[in-house]
Formats: sequence, structure tokens, C-alpha cells
Amino acid sequence: MAYITIPEGVPGIIGPMMFRPETAKPMNELVEVLLRGPSSLSRNEREIIAAFTSYRNKTLFCYRSHGASAAHDLKGGISAVEIILQDFEAAPISEKFKSLLNIAAKVQQDGKLVKQEDIDRAKNAGASEIEIHDAILIAASFCMYNRYVDGLNTFQPEPVEDYFETGRMLAKTVI
Amino acid sequence: MAYITIPEGVPGIIGPMMFRPETAKPMNELVEVLLRGPSSLSRNEREIIAAFTSYRNKTLFCYRSHGASAAHDLKGGISAVEIILQDFEAAPISEKFKSLLNIAAKVQQDGKLVKQEDIDRAKNAGASEIEIHDAILIAASFCMYNRYVDGLNTFQPEPVEDYFETGRMLAKTVI
Repeated sequence: MAYITIPEGVPGIIGPMMFRPETAKPMNELVEVLLRGPSSLSRNEREIIAAFTSYRNKTLFCYRSHGASAAHDLKGGISAVEIILQDFEAAPISEKFKSLLNIAAKVQQDGKLVKQEDIDRAKNAGASEIEIHDAILIAASFCMYNRYVDGLNTFQPEPVEDYFETGRMLAKTVI
Repeated sequence: MAYITIPEGVPGIIGPMMFRPETAKPMNELVEVLLRGPSSLSRNEREIIAAFTSYRNKTLFCYRSHGASAAHDLKGGISAVEIILQDFEAAPISEKFKSLLNIAAKVQQDGKLVKQEDIDRAKNAGASEIEIHDAILIAASFCMYNRYVDGLNTFQPEPVEDYFETGRMLAKTVI
């Protein structure tokens, strides 16, 4: 049971956002710009940074829904996403994407862990400043979304299948 | 030196927000609603929850600027704020405010640490559901702002005096 009065069975962030539309509006806008706005990072890459941060924060709803969104049109589907989340350094992805996930992994713990060498690695792999900025802010913002969903004890279904429809909808959203 | 190209000497979150106005807009809107919008929590209480979260995250810019904002029209000034940040359970504040800071302290670490007994404590002390919601979201959002400011290695001046003007401006902002 969630700690505030929201409709029962409404999963994850949806209930709290119905409860407080004044804060839902900018929270929705931020995630739209970061994950679905114009960017030289693909939507899949951005969804994976969100899922990766949520995976490390152990926030099932955000991890599963953004993972499902990334998997929607990814070759290999959800298994390909899981391989990245579990060991991105060994995953079959570009060095640039690895370097951004390395930065996100540090931000998830504490922004002060990001060092010049992490930025150099990303720049040497071809990451632009705006890509580095966005990777940092996606990880930082999911540290907020995750704490919001967990701190209010929202309903977060376990089965991966329960997220396929959400993932499909997120993947198809156009702004 | 910040990790992205922003004007030198611009402190804290201001540089990254100039760098990426598309994300600055919802980030500014969220903090405005939470700290300065209509609420049954006082502006000082909300600024202190923000400063407290930032203090525990060791993000000097956010801790000092929101602390200075709370101190601006608080009896006892910055010393009164420091007493709360350092040991809120022993501070001369209401049980309701203590119970909300107790929840914020848990959210700062991990939302899953918030338990029913923490919510019961707040409700027994007279906190409404929206006050509990907002305390959780202020703490969660400053886990984002703090990581953003730290992860980009922004300029964060040390002297407490450097924040008095910022605090005065934040305290006087009306939306």
C-alpha cells in the first residue's frame, strides 16, 4: 500500500503524479526533454541510461518500464538490455556508450565520483559535451524519480511481462 | 573547472542551466512549485529540507544557498539553520518538522528506507499527506540537483558569506 491516498493497483510513478499534478507537470517535462527530445543520443541509449540508473537503485518499476521501452525496437529485445545493465563494460556496445554508462554509474552513487579521467574517456570516444551533460542529468534525474517511487511505497509489479505494454507506449511516444 | 563549457566563476547550478535551457526550464519549475508554491509548510521549512538533503549529500553550493535562504528571515539566522542540519532530532523545532526531516534523511539515502512507522510518526505529529509527499519529493529532487551540480564539477565557493546575497534573492522570490 502506498503511503499516500492514490488509487490501488496504479503502478509506479503514475499514482503520485495523479496525487500532485503541480509537481507532475515539470517532472514529466524533464523526462520528455531528456529521453524523447532532440538529441544525438538515440532514444534507446537514453532509455538504457534511465533503466541502468534505476537498476542500480533497485527501483523495479523504473528499471523494468524504461528497460522495456529500450527493448521495444532493439535487436535482441529485453535480453540485450539486461546484458548491458548487468555488465556494460563487457557488453557489445560502443566505447562511447560505455563511457557514458561509466559516468552514469558514478552519478548514481555520488556526483563527486565523476573525475576528469571519466570525462576524458567519454570525449576521446567521441562524446560531445551535451551528450556528457545529458548522461549526467538522466542519471541524476532517475535518482530523483527512483526515490520518489520508492519513498512513497508505490505498487511495483514484479513480472517483466507486466511492463511490455508500458514499454511499447513509452517507445512510441512522440513529442 | 567544470567538465562542460560554461562561463568561469559562475557558481553551482547556474552554469549548467545556462548551458542547457531546455532542461533548466522544468528543473526551475519543479523547485519553484516545491519550495515557493502554495503549501502548508513554510518556505523556511521547505528550504531547510532542501539544505538538509544537500548537506547530507555534501553538495556545498546547494547546502549553503538554500541554508542562507532559510536563514534570511529566521530568528537566529544561519546558526539556527546549522543546528537543525547537524542534529535535527535535538533541535528546537516541532515534532512534525522533525518527523519530515527524518523521512527526508531516509530518502536522501534510498527511498526504500522509508517505512510505515516513519509515515505514522509524521501523521501522528499532524503532517498531512501532501506535506509528506512534498518532503519526500524535495529530498528526492535535491538528490538530483546535488548530483547535477557535483557531477559536472561546477564552481562551489567555500565561504558562507558568498551565499548571503543568493540566500536573500531566493528568500525574496515570489511566484
